[in-house]
Amino acid sequence: MTPPQLLDFASVFVFALTGGLTASRAQLDIVGFLFVGCLTAVGGGTARDVLLSRDPVFWVGDPIYIGVASLAALLVFLGAHRLESRYRVLLWLDALALSVAVSAGISAAVSVGASWVIAVIMGVVTGCLGGLLRDVVCNEVPLVLKQGELYVTAAAVGAATGVAGLTFLDNELAAFLACVVVTFCLRAGSLVFGWRLPTYKSRQPKA
Amino acid sequence: MTPPQLLDFASVFVFALTGGLTASRAQLDIVGFLFVGCLTAVGGGTARDVLLSRDPVFWVGDPIYIGVASLAALLVFLGAHRLESRYRVLLWLDALALSVAVSAGISAAVSVGASWVIAVIMGVVTGCLGGLLRDVVCNEVPLVLKQGELYVTAAAVGAATGVAGLTFLDNELAAFLACVVVTFCLRAGSLVFGWRLPTYKSRQPKA
Amino acid sequence: MTPPQLLDFASVFVFALTGGLTASRAQLDIVGFLFVGCLTAVGGGTARDVLLSRDPVFWVGDPIYIGVASLAALLVFLGAHRLESRYRVLLWLDALALSVAVSAGISAAVSVGASWVIAVIMGVVTGCLGGLLRDVVCNEVPLVLKQGELYVTAAAVGAATGVAGLTFLDNELAAFLACVVVTFCLRAGSLVFGWRLPTYKSRQPKA
Repeated sequence: MTPPQLLDFASVFVFALTGGLTASRAQLDIVGFLFVGCLTAVGGGTARDVLLSRDPVFWVGDPIYIGVASLAALLVFLGAHRLESRYRVLLWLDALALSVAVSAGISAAVSVGASWVIAVIMGVVTGCLGGLLRDVVCNEVPLVLKQGELYVTAAAVGAATGVAGLTFLDNELAAFLACVVVTFCLRAGSLVFGWRLPTYKSRQPKA
Repeated sequence: MTPPQLLDFASVFVFALTGGLTASRAQLDIVGFLFVGCLTAVGGGTARDVLLSRDPVFWVGDPIYIGVASLAALLVFLGAHRLESRYRVLLWLDALALSVAVSAGISAAVSVGASWVIAVIMGVVTGCLGGLLRDVVCNEVPLVLKQGELYVTAAAVGAATGVAGLTFLDNELAAFLACVVVTFCLRAGSLVFGWRLPTYKSRQPKA
Repeated sequence: MTPPQLLDFASVFVFALTGGLTASRAQLDIVGFLFVGCLTAVGGGTARDVLLSRDPVFWVGDPIYIGVASLAALLVFLGAHRLESRYRVLLWLDALALSVAVSAGISAAVSVGASWVIAVIMGVVTGCLGGLLRDVVCNEVPLVLKQGELYVTAAAVGAATGVAGLTFLDNELAAFLACVVVTFCLRAGSLVFGWRLPTYKSRQPKA
């Protein structure tokens, strides 16, 4: 299995878990779990592949990804009631999924010879879109758009770190690891310590 | 005309009718009718074609589909005021459109050699996405996401029936017919008798 | 630089300005400005390129578009507080961006040999989608869906004018100019004088 495939698998699995958790909060039926789980799991990578004109889209070419996502959603359907706080678990799994998916995004972009700007963007798209679709479909406030949190920022900085690593290091694995760690730490710092960027303040009222 | 084309035509026409009805409920102007009608009519099939990397997308290759959708939207614009309950008609036309579009989805997927998992997913995507876009754009509660109704489930079971039929029967027409009938009956059973799957219940409050 | 590229550049720049203004109204941070600016700037053209199966998507093939959009978003981040009414400026910049993007849409469609129906639709898609994404992501009422205003209509009539010009005039530049002027004037007439099409009125209450 190539690194892009491995990263895709990991991100599909963890994102499908978050999809299942969100489905459990929305009290959906089993088909709803599978639907939200698969949508969350493959949403970001699908957008990436369409934008990069990769043919076929990763899960169309290899439907085992759908099997992995369905398995994760099913696990949550059977086991979620044992969790004490599903929202806390969801937040942290989402942070992990984001980190892995950002790596999967830059990895796929680099493997088709995209420039570094495009690789960073594909990292952000792959990381952020699955969770956005999940939250929109289940009518939650999208984590990606919550003000005063690092989310797109964490993805962008992590992706830039990974791309820089791929360019300047000889070690592909180290680059992906750096990407995962930086993305996760920024996101975690935002969740735990409230890290954020200064927001735009106008001197006038909203007009 | 090949079966995929014929199914696409039928699904485009019926979905455009539902688009027009939704536009009439939102009191749009004639351009709004055409816009929502076309969006509803080709939305699902467009996503299917993009995911399958079909080139060109069906209505880009053959703009007559846009003509069919526009005609249907125009018919509704001229005649909808004669209906006693537009919402009832909408519900039932939507069920019909769903059934036909699911068949159109699996038919197109099979015609490009997709595996059965992908064919089922393409049936669900083609069936559900047009109506979802229609409801989102017109600010209605999306039928596809209404809790406690079979919609994605009806599409998925119908699609699986159709794919099984294509695999095990010698008769393509019988397979598509089975797909339409199963999807429609499940959806109708949900509308009339309130059929549903058990939903996820947690022992704790939402957390 | 070819006319499609030039029109794409202009539309990317002006749309990114509107994205930045919307981000300032939502009080996002700098990454939010860049995100919304780029999304607004390339959203419509991306949908057009995917629908037309253009490979690569315009900004993937030439990332300078991302640079232009980022620059525009940055300018707004630095200078927006000097504006007296950001919403008025936003409305008029959006009208300008719409007009230019509609031209960019038909120009790209014609350059790949699309029929006139498809060219008009691509004009509407390219013009309307960026602003729609911007408003949805920033939680504003989408301008494109505001009732009783010409927006899709302005785009559609402008696109049809441009396509007619390309067909019947010898002068490409004149055709694009006509498209921009017609779109902008219809939209401006709607903003200033309240021009609109009659809306659908049913004799019954909403049902």
